[in-house]
Amino acid sequence: MAESMQGMHRTHRCTELSNANIGEYVTVMGWVQKRRNLGGMIFVDLRDRTGLLQLIFDQNDLSEEDFSKAYGLRSEFVIAASGKVEKRSGAVNENLKTGDIEIRVDVLRVLSEAETPPFPIEEGINTREELRLQYRYLDLRRPDLQRNLMLRSRVATLSRNFMANEGFLEIETPMLTKSTPEGARDYLVPSRLHPGTFYALPQSPQLFKQLLMCAGYDRYFQIARCFRDEDLRADRQPDFTQMDMELSFVTEEDVMSINERLLQHLFKEVLNVDVQLPIRRMPYREAMDRYGSDKPDVRFGMELHNVSEVVKDCGFGVFTGALANGGSVRGINVKGQGGMARKKIDALVDMAKGMGAKGLAYVCVGMGEGGAHKSSFAKFMKPEEMDALVSAMEGEHGDLLLFAADKDSIVFNVLGSLRLEMAKQLDLVRKDDFQFLWVTEFPLLEYSEEQGRFVAMHHPFTMPMEEDLQYLDSDPGRVRAKAYDIVLNGNEIGGGSIRIHQEHIQEKMFEVLGFTKEQAHERFGFLLDAFKYGVPPHGGLAYGLDRLAMLMAGADSIREVIAFPKAKDASCLMTQAPDAVDQKQLDELSLAIHIVGDEKKEQ
Amino acid sequence: MAESMQGMHRTHRCTELSNANIGEYVTVMGWVQKRRNLGGMIFVDLRDRTGLLQLIFDQNDLSEEDFSKAYGLRSEFVIAASGKVEKRSGAVNENLKTGDIEIRVDVLRVLSEAETPPFPIEEGINTREELRLQYRYLDLRRPDLQRNLMLRSRVATLSRNFMANEGFLEIETPMLTKSTPEGARDYLVPSRLHPGTFYALPQSPQLFKQLLMCAGYDRYFQIARCFRDEDLRADRQPDFTQMDMELSFVTEEDVMSINERLLQHLFKEVLNVDVQLPIRRMPYREAMDRYGSDKPDVRFGMELHNVSEVVKDCGFGVFTGALANGGSVRGINVKGQGGMARKKIDALVDMAKGMGAKGLAYVCVGMGEGGAHKSSFAKFMKPEEMDALVSAMEGEHGDLLLFAADKDSIVFNVLGSLRLEMAKQLDLVRKDDFQFLWVTEFPLLEYSEEQGRFVAMHHPFTMPMEEDLQYLDSDPGRVRAKAYDIVLNGNEIGGGSIRIHQEHIQEKMFEVLGFTKEQAHERFGFLLDAFKYGVPPHGGLAYGLDRLAMLMAGADSIREVIAFPKAKDASCLMTQAPDAVDQKQLDELSLAIHIVGDEKKEQ
Repeated sequence: MAESMQGMHRTHRCTELSNANIGEYVTVMGWVQKRRNLGGMIFVDLRDRTGLLQLIFDQNDLSEEDFSKAYGLRSEFVIAASGKVEKRSGAVNENLKTGDIEIRVDVLRVLSEAETPPFPIEEGINTREELRLQYRYLDLRRPDLQRNLMLRSRVATLSRNFMANEGFLEIETPMLTKSTPEGARDYLVPSRLHPGTFYALPQSPQLFKQLLMCAGYDRYFQIARCFRDEDLRADRQPDFTQMDMELSFVTEEDVMSINERLLQHLFKEVLNVDVQLPIRRMPYREAMDRYGSDKPDVRFGMELHNVSEVVKDCGFGVFTGALANGGSVRGINVKGQGGMARKKIDALVDMAKGMGAKGLAYVCVGMGEGGAHKSSFAKFMKPEEMDALVSAMEGEHGDLLLFAADKDSIVFNVLGSLRLEMAKQLDLVRKDDFQFLWVTEFPLLEYSEEQGRFVAMHHPFTMPMEEDLQYLDSDPGRVRAKAYDIVLNGNEIGGGSIRIHQEHIQEKMFEVLGFTKEQAHERFGFLLDAFKYGVPPHGGLAYGLDRLAMLMAGADSIREVIAFPKAKDASCLMTQAPDAVDQKQLDELSLAIHIVGDEKKEQ
Repeated sequence: MAESMQGMHRTHRCTELSNANIGEYVTVMGWVQKRRNLGGMIFVDLRDRTGLLQLIFDQNDLSEEDFSKAYGLRSEFVIAASGKVEKRSGAVNENLKTGDIEIRVDVLRVLSEAETPPFPIEEGINTREELRLQYRYLDLRRPDLQRNLMLRSRVATLSRNFMANEGFLEIETPMLTKSTPEGARDYLVPSRLHPGTFYALPQSPQLFKQLLMCAGYDRYFQIARCFRDEDLRADRQPDFTQMDMELSFVTEEDVMSINERLLQHLFKEVLNVDVQLPIRRMPYREAMDRYGSDKPDVRFGMELHNVSEVVKDCGFGVFTGALANGGSVRGINVKGQGGMARKKIDALVDMAKGMGAKGLAYVCVGMGEGGAHKSSFAKFMKPEEMDALVSAMEGEHGDLLLFAADKDSIVFNVLGSLRLEMAKQLDLVRKDDFQFLWVTEFPLLEYSEEQGRFVAMHHPFTMPMEEDLQYLDSDPGRVRAKAYDIVLNGNEIGGGSIRIHQEHIQEKMFEVLGFTKEQAHERFGFLLDAFKYGVPPHGGLAYGLDRLAMLMAGADSIREVIAFPKAKDASCLMTQAPDAVDQKQLDELSLAIHIVGDEKKEQ
């Protein structure tokens, strides 16, 4: 039976007590982590969000009833206990913040009993995730998740204060807005009052924050929920959280500078990590050439070498063929791994094939018979060609050289991924080494084979670089944007751009994207209208807060920093959402379920 | 043509300059509020979110080209201007923060031209709201709206910091959750991956914040977006913002105490208003008896008098009839208004009828012929009965007494509303007089005639008062709850309760509400499951942030403190949401539009 806490008042959380409190009479409340009996004594580890504290129940101090109540305590019971803080009678527990004290309890109340949980409430359990998500309220009791959510809360608080001090206003943008066909798939919300029509949940506050700049708010900040109905990927959530900002009368430099200081502040306050400013910057082109990625992990080298020039006349048809098709041949040098087992190399080849490569060429420098190079393609090359190649790769005895030959996009993808894979296998990076990088000068547009036209790489409001405006008509693919991503350890944690604020450039942009005036107006009419009435130069940036918190917490999945995440199929295993609804609800919304496959079956 | 701001860097916002800066060379950027020509001079009022600043363009200082550019400036052009800060040459403008200075401009760039806006960008315009909402990005430029949104931002920042200092964690709860039939109507979100099923947008984070307590987070805070698909009322929004909190191991006193300090802090920091603590408390019963309202405006008296005893044997059948039917007769004394015109009194009678009363009885004390009382019912009463009534009402010569006789709910509603109406007509209250009140001891349940059963007055997790637990079976309507509302000037700005954390009380509660075990489990299964594993006593409170900000800003509608509000029909006049969507989108969601009326027409 649950007792009441009436008349008791918690004086401390568990680890708010220390040997400085010895002799004080205190009241603590929390969950029973563990109970042990020892002669006429019962020891209980009490747990709250701050940590553990030892309670001692001594037969000599307690009424028979209270002692037997203590005897009946089981894991996860919620109790309130009062007593005096004492120096610990037994051995000091060095692993515990409160390891040198205990509370000699003289009043105990059981506030709530508990059944045995389906998994232990402990750090680092290996219970399968489905069960953890089903009992999320128990999973959330585990110290690692509690630490993660407390860290995330702190990141939000620190960010908000930093931004407020920099003159940013926190302004909420609409959650029920209009569906736009550009971008990812919208989540729709049927309107009851306007039958047959729908709101869309926002994919980001982009248009609204630009309107706020247009309306003179100067600096806007919001931690905003965003929604994208995308297909399943491992680390996606249907709704996610952006830390979003926009600034008026600024250049890229201004936006980057504020964000560098924000990141420095966060990492110092939360992790006691010093971020050196300014953060390194690298143009997109250089990032691709050196790391095969627009979000390179610069904690380690193993950079790509372009050996196209070296092999352009060699005897290996795979290389020369790729070059003839306008591609390139590039490689990475995995230092000292020339002795890698054939089976492991084969796995790398399979990985490359999985990414669209026809294969993966390799050289184990000097690891063949008699000090020759062991290689998948040595037979196609003259020894001096091979030597030139190895030398171009700065290959030394015992190195493993991996080559991809294809069109650039595949080469970058394959080698960029292999580089990360090798770093993982060889344990080249430390989780607590935080290396930031700005990637700049992104292409404004990328050609979509699927749509047969250029599409915006960021979004259609991104400002081209002044010096490239001249190519908008003649060579759109060459135009670079005033766009920047902030990358941490190989993860894009945020990105943004300076926006177009000039009507004529915006019109040109829509033209290049293949929109007629009517189409542009249908999609973004209110923004274009707004821009007629005086709009300041402006730009901004948005962070993926889930991912940032994940990296700061050293967690492996964003689900570890979200209180109630969805499973991979976008369902909630705890509440059983989504679920069927009543016919009445559908009628009110003027909707009918109409599964297209079913119809076909009927016909 | 739009010029670039390249090479210019804003040094100050408009009102960041004062006569302390005289002699400095500065760069300012903003919108042209007004341009005036005076001989060889042009004066421009420049506007940004901080206010106005005068720029002076002197033909002698500028190139011909720049002077003609200045001459071409029109309202709402966005410009950048550099020049020296000077003491104002003309008359000092006392109404302006920067009224004693001006900038003598020597560099001008026009960053964006502007068409003439459809309404003036000024404070307190009387443009119709539809037009303002359609051009919200222009409406938001007006100083009153800017002040409101800046105030709201400050309220959010101050609240978050206060709560963080009190040990609250900011934790985000899900936006895509499960529809529950209890409560208001849900907004639904169709699931594409699970055809035929729906998420619901949260009406509040209630269940999740209780789960967080269950999971040991101890103190939770969130400024959360909530959604209710309710029918149209003047001051409703389909989505609104709650400032939401929950605390473990607390009593009502703890929750109220923290919130009193929060409110004191907010009102001091934002409005420089001192809130005296503790805030007054009043049980629900007393609030109804004295003010006819559970959210009384206590800035003025005019309290209700229960005169049932006085009139119980009188000759006026309306009074005695109401009493015979179990009702009451009550009145208010509108001091000094006995001379009110008959037409105005008739309007009050109509108002009462509109609220379900059969009529409204009145007495104009001593205002009849020869000093008799002028009254709608004098003829039914003996003079001594009338005198006793007037005396019970503390009526003095020239007072207007208004009486309602009906069942209590109607009497309270009528007199509570008339009390507010009279205060409005007589201008009895000041907007800047902030009177807080806790209303406590709410009924746990109210009987729903419509559903033929008791329903929860707050929600089914509200804890009954210990001393009333005994009536849960025998007399459920008598049970009071550990619930409290915080009322400001007649507005409920927040409310909360201590929650049930004992399984047996929760089960009893569901029983009283008429839920079978199955129904209870279907609706709230995951919460009931969670409560099996050890749950702390907990309680919380949520504010309507929109309303709180509205009252603090002295605004008349929550739409004045929301950046992009919906119109009364829940549509957005700026973006045209909600809107039709593509057939493809419907197909992907396995939905068809099915307007029930249409089907009937077809048959």
